[in-house]
Amino acid sequence: MKFSANLVDSKPHTSDSLEAERKKASFSTDEMMHYILGDKIINSRNRALEIIKSEPELFDQRDIYYLSRTEKLEKSLKQEKTLQEMRRQGKITAQDIAEVLDVLDWTTPFALTRIMFIPTLEQQCNEEQREAFLKPAQDYRIIGCYAQTEVGHGSNIRALETTATFIPETDEFEVNSPTLTSTKWWIGSLGITSTHACVMAQLYVKGKHIGLFPIIVPLRSMVDHKPLPGVNVGDIGPKMGFTTMDNGFLNFDKVRVPRFNLLQKYINVSRDGIVTRPNNIDPRVTYGSMVYVRATIARNMGISLGKAVTIATRYSSVRRQFGEPNQPETPVLDYPIVQYRVIPLLAKAYLMIGMSHEFFAQYQNTTERINQGDFSTLKEMHAISCGLKRWTSDTAVYGVDTCRHVCGGHGFSMFSGLNEFFGDMYQNIIVEGDNYVLAKQTARYLVKSAHDLNSPSTRSSVEVNDTTAVIAKYSLSNELSSDQLFSWRNKSASEIAGSYELLMDLLGYRFVTLVDELGAKIYSGQTWDESSVASQAIATAHAEYITCLYFMRYLSRPANQNIKQILKVLFSVAALSFLTKNTAELFGFQGKAKLEYTQIKELESEYIRYIKMARVQAVPLVDSLGISDIKLNSSLGRHDGNVYEDYIQRALMEPVNVDGSGDKIREHFYNDYIGPILKGYSPSSSPFSKL
Amino acid sequence: MKFSANLVDSKPHTSDSLEAERKKASFSTDEMMHYILGDKIINSRNRALEIIKSEPELFDQRDIYYLSRTEKLEKSLKQEKTLQEMRRQGKITAQDIAEVLDVLDWTTPFALTRIMFIPTLEQQCNEEQREAFLKPAQDYRIIGCYAQTEVGHGSNIRALETTATFIPETDEFEVNSPTLTSTKWWIGSLGITSTHACVMAQLYVKGKHIGLFPIIVPLRSMVDHKPLPGVNVGDIGPKMGFTTMDNGFLNFDKVRVPRFNLLQKYINVSRDGIVTRPNNIDPRVTYGSMVYVRATIARNMGISLGKAVTIATRYSSVRRQFGEPNQPETPVLDYPIVQYRVIPLLAKAYLMIGMSHEFFAQYQNTTERINQGDFSTLKEMHAISCGLKRWTSDTAVYGVDTCRHVCGGHGFSMFSGLNEFFGDMYQNIIVEGDNYVLAKQTARYLVKSAHDLNSPSTRSSVEVNDTTAVIAKYSLSNELSSDQLFSWRNKSASEIAGSYELLMDLLGYRFVTLVDELGAKIYSGQTWDESSVASQAIATAHAEYITCLYFMRYLSRPANQNIKQILKVLFSVAALSFLTKNTAELFGFQGKAKLEYTQIKELESEYIRYIKMARVQAVPLVDSLGISDIKLNSSLGRHDGNVYEDYIQRALMEPVNVDGSGDKIREHFYNDYIGPILKGYSPSSSPFSKL
Repeated sequence: MKFSANLVDSKPHTSDSLEAERKKASFSTDEMMHYILGDKIINSRNRALEIIKSEPELFDQRDIYYLSRTEKLEKSLKQEKTLQEMRRQGKITAQDIAEVLDVLDWTTPFALTRIMFIPTLEQQCNEEQREAFLKPAQDYRIIGCYAQTEVGHGSNIRALETTATFIPETDEFEVNSPTLTSTKWWIGSLGITSTHACVMAQLYVKGKHIGLFPIIVPLRSMVDHKPLPGVNVGDIGPKMGFTTMDNGFLNFDKVRVPRFNLLQKYINVSRDGIVTRPNNIDPRVTYGSMVYVRATIARNMGISLGKAVTIATRYSSVRRQFGEPNQPETPVLDYPIVQYRVIPLLAKAYLMIGMSHEFFAQYQNTTERINQGDFSTLKEMHAISCGLKRWTSDTAVYGVDTCRHVCGGHGFSMFSGLNEFFGDMYQNIIVEGDNYVLAKQTARYLVKSAHDLNSPSTRSSVEVNDTTAVIAKYSLSNELSSDQLFSWRNKSASEIAGSYELLMDLLGYRFVTLVDELGAKIYSGQTWDESSVASQAIATAHAEYITCLYFMRYLSRPANQNIKQILKVLFSVAALSFLTKNTAELFGFQGKAKLEYTQIKELESEYIRYIKMARVQAVPLVDSLGISDIKLNSSLGRHDGNVYEDYIQRALMEPVNVDGSGDKIREHFYNDYIGPILKGYSPSSSPFSKL
Repeated sequence: MKFSANLVDSKPHTSDSLEAERKKASFSTDEMMHYILGDKIINSRNRALEIIKSEPELFDQRDIYYLSRTEKLEKSLKQEKTLQEMRRQGKITAQDIAEVLDVLDWTTPFALTRIMFIPTLEQQCNEEQREAFLKPAQDYRIIGCYAQTEVGHGSNIRALETTATFIPETDEFEVNSPTLTSTKWWIGSLGITSTHACVMAQLYVKGKHIGLFPIIVPLRSMVDHKPLPGVNVGDIGPKMGFTTMDNGFLNFDKVRVPRFNLLQKYINVSRDGIVTRPNNIDPRVTYGSMVYVRATIARNMGISLGKAVTIATRYSSVRRQFGEPNQPETPVLDYPIVQYRVIPLLAKAYLMIGMSHEFFAQYQNTTERINQGDFSTLKEMHAISCGLKRWTSDTAVYGVDTCRHVCGGHGFSMFSGLNEFFGDMYQNIIVEGDNYVLAKQTARYLVKSAHDLNSPSTRSSVEVNDTTAVIAKYSLSNELSSDQLFSWRNKSASEIAGSYELLMDLLGYRFVTLVDELGAKIYSGQTWDESSVASQAIATAHAEYITCLYFMRYLSRPANQNIKQILKVLFSVAALSFLTKNTAELFGFQGKAKLEYTQIKELESEYIRYIKMARVQAVPLVDSLGISDIKLNSSLGRHDGNVYEDYIQRALMEPVNVDGSGDKIREHFYNDYIGPILKGYSPSSSPFSKL
């Protein structure tokens, strides 16, 4: 199928419109890219792009929108095989593989061996186990998965049902699935790939329940990959996204493994069934890796949101609709209702990325302290990691959705690049702690900290950190005057909107008031379950405060004035978005903290004004995120702006259109279904027989 | 692949939990079903179920989650063919076909000939054209589409580029696509199916631009279905949803059709090129069909939301997580944070369905008036239809998403029934007027009405209707005291929450204050583009008011007291949800209308209290919507509660698991990709050669 060659371009051409937007840049996009992403991200991304370009056919992702799940699985396995060959040949590293898949923006059935199986072994093996399990895993001579979730239990891991019972007679553990609901489920890399599983099981020794511990269970034959006796394993079937991951199910009919297979860093069962736990291990260290995983999600969410915003910004800059008579139609990004949806997301993507550098630095700092036995920063870090994972994933997932809607009808096409992508990233609001559950973790920390700070007997036990400093400022008597405490008093909305300090004060006081309000209820007997709705707002307000704080800290690094200037605009856009999205929170400021009705209303106008300022630089700002056309995989978001040409080209690749194979499909549809309906014949006779 | 037969059930079994919920019913679900749906819906649904059950294999939809797009297209075409045979045999009607597809909850490539092509012909053909086009279309001897949207233009239909130029020499129109962007796009039933298109084209006669008019263009040969000369047609490729619809593209290289093919109800071009328009036609009549389409969307959205809520309610009633020691774990629907997300959606689904009966009645009334030349009710009806289409589709689409998230990890599985479904229904926020654009239509009507009411010179020209009555009440001087006008004064939150009248007054005053606030800006020079953000809130507030009003009217029909009681609870849940979601709107009530801070805060508590009341009846309430397991197509939402058994059964049907064909896929994956990685061999050698 071909397109008529007679068709001429409409004026102005979309690519010219995009170029015109780029000319408005008040800063160097290259400089901005280095400032916001940092050299490390840029270098590893460039390295991945080189690898991808070395095998252009293998890594061409343009066809994925037409493939069935089985075809996608095959495509990703083919890529994994080549990548592993390159690694064995010393051409690339294991880290490069992860980066390549990140640029391709999908995954392979090997991903969970990389991101869960190997890290768990690194943390929980003793020396002999490192030799037996970790080393072959690192060379992909075994492939593993982390089998925790069961079909009946996700959040409540204490209630997992799979058992591992010590059998003294044979010096083994018997791993068993007692019920249908104890079937392991959702386990990535399990459905068709893994040879081994790290199974989280309820450990029983001499009839006594010891607790939940990880044990390595071989699943498939190393000879022919067939499931081993007693192992029932398969793929859990199609999902909303994450299609190339073989999430699997697994249950055990009394499978025996050597005692050696119990990972022994935190637990030891001796030959004669004595259970010991090393006494130099603080159980809190395991929080460290949770923090790391959540920090990684937070950064990825920034990049993901950046991808969606890149598509929506470029497309809405070149898509024209309505306008003045005898003029080219107006780019839809010039309409306030479009700006209002896209620009705050652009600002938030920048904030997430900038903030995440600081978040990793804080994580690093906490880890170093823990290694020296100092756990003082862990509690806040844990609360922040819950809050930021929750806020970034929620903001990014629904941000992608907003970007899709902004693209109008064409957003609904797979070629927008926003649909497969939305399906893939949606899981981030559920995994590593469902967002609704995580809110409680943060809220609990905040309410408890505020309570302890307000009680003379516990005050000194409260660690001083970013969070408690704000609570203390507004809770404890101090030397500050009302005008210092409530710095927004008598300030105009425009003064507030342009000031880091005033905006931070408002954001800080906002979360403190919400914490105080809930605290009063909690300490008069309201349960945490009853407080779960309020906890959501608290966790959000705190995450928004911390995001702004970390971003501001990141901005303390030196940069050109024109870089700083536009980043400050983005900061204001984001902060005003947080403050104005539910102004009832601001109406709740009482007494000397009161914000006047007109201040609040004018903050809404300032928000619109800052959005307009950022809009001018929108295309250069998304360019500076440096997201390649390969990762975008989108007609609408192409760097060169050839939107409609690419869109039509992709439509021609649709299987029912393709010359030869597509003709066959259409002939079949016509001969067997459409023709008989048109001709009104009975199904047995050919539609052509009576022509 | 089979599951171990040794696995026992967990206690309590999910089906028992669901039965226990049903025992709590305070009303007859059968009675409720008749009350809320009405006999017409129930009868046509039952009729469709009978037809489906007569061909169980053909209509079995359990496999759709595993099919590629081409396979899905084939499946739906097969169904269409059988349905058309049944129709020709007189066993079923055309309406039955639509109902069957509604129960199956998908579509076939013939849908647009039914819902757009035939209705357009019905409205715009003259008598000869009815014979030539409408009659064969009604018997499916031709299949047509409605070709309006182009790749470059959707919302701004005036800027469509396709032309139809009168050629006096041959008495023809020449239909042409002058540019790439003029290519028709998104046209349903076009990609592989249609023989004809009703093309919206810019009509030119004797060099003069007449306007946009519909013209019938044959597309494919009636002999072999191949595209006719100059016709470039194909499928636009994969989409987020609506997979079985062959949305297509189409452009013309100077295609000639007889002058006869211009649909002549509203325009006439004579043999010698004289253009006339029948003078007995008021152009406003075309609004009528838009209203009808939007009313249909509004009702469908109620049913769709009801489907999602059925799944989420049943599943969260049987899914247990955490709880008291030595007790069965707690059904997650007992947690406030789950209730808070599901129950208001349940209430809104009921409101949408109940309201839509009244909406259709109003539409009917308006149509009858129009037929008598009375257009007085059209303006409000149009504004309401924009507002209700927007509000219902937005609420339902994101309600489905909320239901999916409530189902946790299992919501992400295709077997939840919520993912394919979300993709299919998402388009409702874009089609028939993008929701963001529609808001302006409603806001304009409201602001203008308020302004006209407030000006003595125009006051009398304002039609009295549901909307203007509320505006007039709060704008014009009348006999009412402050306590009558602002009936919430000195009322406790619990008095408000339990009273239809007080809730309606608050909802009414809320939209009036928002209208007044924007009106003041508009009439001091703010443009409508600048007002687009405020327009969203106004359109929502008005739609919520009208929804509650229409629902309340529907409830005036007689029913058992226990039916009325629970419906009143649902009304309060929905109304309180509207009022408390952004309490800044309530804080904006000034002067004698002021709501006290404590009133507002306590309304939030009342909201939670009403949610808890409704929660008790949640399962009987979703049962009463009577949505069949066939339509749900969900493991999680099954009527019998056998959630995990069905879920596992469906996983076993995943293509890579299936005995035989699945074994082959896995062997292929192992031999060609996984094995070589594990063994570290080069791609050419077999992984088994060196064992």
